[in-house]
Amino acid sequence: MSTQTNLRRWERRSEWPLAAAALIFLGVYSVKVLAQPHGGEAHVLRAVMWIIWSLFILDYVARLRLACNRPRWFFRHLFDLAIVVLPMARPLRLLRLIVLIQVLNRAAGDALRGRIVSYTASGVLLLIYTASLAAFDEERYQPGATINSFGKALWWSITTVTTVGYGDVYPVTNAGRVIAVLLMIGGIGLVSVVTATLASFIIERVAEKETANQAATAAHIEELRSQIRELAEEVRARG
Amino acid sequence: MSTQTNLRRWERRSEWPLAAAALIFLGVYSVKVLAQPHGGEAHVLRAVMWIIWSLFILDYVARLRLACNRPRWFFRHLFDLAIVVLPMARPLRLLRLIVLIQVLNRAAGDALRGRIVSYTASGVLLLIYTASLAAFDEERYQPGATINSFGKALWWSITTVTTVGYGDVYPVTNAGRVIAVLLMIGGIGLVSVVTATLASFIIERVAEKETANQAATAAHIEELRSQIRELAEEVRARG
Amino acid sequence: MSTQTNLRRWERRSEWPLAAAALIFLGVYSVKVLAQPHGGEAHVLRAVMWIIWSLFILDYVARLRLACNRPRWFFRHLFDLAIVVLPMARPLRLLRLIVLIQVLNRAAGDALRGRIVSYTASGVLLLIYTASLAAFDEERYQPGATINSFGKALWWSITTVTTVGYGDVYPVTNAGRVIAVLLMIGGIGLVSVVTATLASFIIERVAEKETANQAATAAHIEELRSQIRELAEEVRARG
Amino acid sequence: MSTQTNLRRWERRSEWPLAAAALIFLGVYSVKVLAQPHGGEAHVLRAVMWIIWSLFILDYVARLRLACNRPRWFFRHLFDLAIVVLPMARPLRLLRLIVLIQVLNRAAGDALRGRIVSYTASGVLLLIYTASLAAFDEERYQPGATINSFGKALWWSITTVTTVGYGDVYPVTNAGRVIAVLLMIGGIGLVSVVTATLASFIIERVAEKETANQAATAAHIEELRSQIRELAEEVRARG
Repeated sequence: MSTQTNLRRWERRSEWPLAAAALIFLGVYSVKVLAQPHGGEAHVLRAVMWIIWSLFILDYVARLRLACNRPRWFFRHLFDLAIVVLPMARPLRLLRLIVLIQVLNRAAGDALRGRIVSYTASGVLLLIYTASLAAFDEERYQPGATINSFGKALWWSITTVTTVGYGDVYPVTNAGRVIAVLLMIGGIGLVSVVTATLASFIIERVAEKETANQAATAAHIEELRSQIRELAEEVRARG
Repeated sequence: MSTQTNLRRWERRSEWPLAAAALIFLGVYSVKVLAQPHGGEAHVLRAVMWIIWSLFILDYVARLRLACNRPRWFFRHLFDLAIVVLPMARPLRLLRLIVLIQVLNRAAGDALRGRIVSYTASGVLLLIYTASLAAFDEERYQPGATINSFGKALWWSITTVTTVGYGDVYPVTNAGRVIAVLLMIGGIGLVSVVTATLASFIIERVAEKETANQAATAAHIEELRSQIRELAEEVRARG
Repeated sequence: MSTQTNLRRWERRSEWPLAAAALIFLGVYSVKVLAQPHGGEAHVLRAVMWIIWSLFILDYVARLRLACNRPRWFFRHLFDLAIVVLPMARPLRLLRLIVLIQVLNRAAGDALRGRIVSYTASGVLLLIYTASLAAFDEERYQPGATINSFGKALWWSITTVTTVGYGDVYPVTNAGRVIAVLLMIGGIGLVSVVTATLASFIIERVAEKETANQAATAAHIEELRSQIRELAEEVRARG
Repeated sequence: MSTQTNLRRWERRSEWPLAAAALIFLGVYSVKVLAQPHGGEAHVLRAVMWIIWSLFILDYVARLRLACNRPRWFFRHLFDLAIVVLPMARPLRLLRLIVLIQVLNRAAGDALRGRIVSYTASGVLLLIYTASLAAFDEERYQPGATINSFGKALWWSITTVTTVGYGDVYPVTNAGRVIAVLLMIGGIGLVSVVTATLASFIIERVAEKETANQAATAAHIEELRSQIRELAEEVRARG
């Protein structure tokens, strides 16, 4: 069995455990930021986060070893390396939750537009929640910070993702501003996905109404072919 | 007659009375917020709002009873329950006015794009008015509130729905921020609908201009078929 | 000759003089707001504005008289009445300049997308200039106004039309806010037109690339028909 | 050889040296703004900028001389003149870097949408960096300026290009505001390109799914034609 196939198999098998790890990470991170536990609970939380981190490192190392062309794999997966190594990119581990969204989307059926919209909606909600948590964690004790409660952090995330940007609440740290940039990119994506999906829907519906100018389909052509075939047989029979 | 049909009939019959109730609710709510009546008038307004509320509860209970599969209906209509039970979701009862918009739209004719635009325009105007009323009601006596007149509330709604968000006026209460989120969602919808409708229009018009490369239509194929049929008759006659 | 034709003829003939009047109005309005002349010049400007106004009233009355069904014309042209009667709607007379834009657009050729883009660009530039003038006129002497120079008014118009809305400059009067709403509507239109035109362009280009799956055109069908016609003649000749 | 061809040849040959000059300009400009060197280094930087400027002037003069119809060329290239003559338009010389983007895009392959997206992404990143540099250079020592560090300038550029516009940081000089307008135009372009590309993608994918209603293609018609040709031969053989 080739190494390429081994890499695929590893990725398929590790998909669910890593998604579960990301979900636990989301819970632990929420508790850590919102409840700010001390003493024993804090130790437990820290231990869980270390275990999750080692899982992610394990997955990274395993994939790097299984890759056919290791240097190429390394340069093509610098983003994965950043998620594992940089402490600031820690919340990006939640990207693994995309697997959970896929399950939730089974209900949306096969329709391309339905799946795009439900992906975007789940993704934006997750982005808003995570960005609020992370920004609140970074900004809460900064002098002059306006993001000083989780409610304000949520409010700020939503005004940013919709590109409204009142300016009553805004980040003052570099980490907070990086999170804001991710939210803005998410916001542009949200508007684009909604608009593009709607445009595709309207164009299709308008086209459907024009039955008088209905385009010739392959089925029409098939009918014509069988007619000609019959005619040829007629010619052959009488010729 | 099956229960499913009974549910449908109830919904068809209750549609108009509930829209009328929602319209009266809009008027009463406007008077209550803008005029802040005391004494006798206040009692009358409160009585009217209680009657409208009981109508909505009646409708909810009736629909739940007429549903085939009550647990499924219950879980699929949690939003309807929220509108009836939560005091904060009260203004959402105005969603019933969508029926009135349908009537106004009869004038817009059958064209899909015309109807989409007129729905969006009516919906956004209603959203701006209702959100201004509700936000003004929630924010007016808050310390540090900037939404302290109905004019400012209207101005704030419009800057939010267009995603401009100057930040000279913004909500400070949780209720006001929830209203703001609804306005932002409405704003993204507004931009999307306008863009998508325009894109569909331009694509259609550009396509129309290209008469030289006009697509083969079913009508063209039909002509071909009759030509082949005539040929077959000819062969048969002379064969 | 029917009255309907008379109305059309009047509109065709009055088009250019009214556009010229609107252009003069733009100049006079600019001088009045920016230079704030006193004494003799002020009287001349006021006189010119009265003459332009009477031209617009004359045009309105003439069109009302020439209309077949006057009540219907009246109700369908309430917007025209508002422009003539309301002092606040005065800058809207500049809408007549759309005729000038049509001339400028002759250079853009026949292409639908080119014309849409050049209309939008000219319209948005005119809107920004006029809105800046009008807002500056309304806000300049207001206590607490931030639009207190023409440069700031221009800056505010541009941040509003692009829906950025920093909030360093914003209107405080009702008239200024009405102008802001027009700018926001213009901004949504601008984004929509740019996006929709681009979408139409990309969709067309992608379609052109797919020559392998080129759609069957009417020309293809025409070739088939002549082939069948030849075959029929062959059958007739030999039959 | 005609002069038109000489102009083309000059443009093709000067393309790369000018892009290199623009790249050096970007580096020198970054050092000048960010490090603010004094004494010897400052003289070297100034000398390099003068050399680059003279290269651009040389290119402008050469192209003007090689043009067939010089007055027409002059009026059609007023923008090029502005870049060379106006000190404020200096950063626009970086537009030459579009050539570098073309090279980077070779990796994106032939796909129209891929190239559009990679052009836009590179262009927006370059725009954000250059606008931050230029705005920081203009605003840093202004009284009341909020753009007083390069980090804040970058943050401001990003909030402007995404049209969020919190208003915590904003330009106060005319030059800074002109840069802001360029960023806003870039932002509208960014949203439009992302939306339009996505719309084209969704429309194509939805169309592909509808295999049942697959449009008749030229290949289908070709099959029909060969069938009819065979039939004609049959008729001829037996007739």
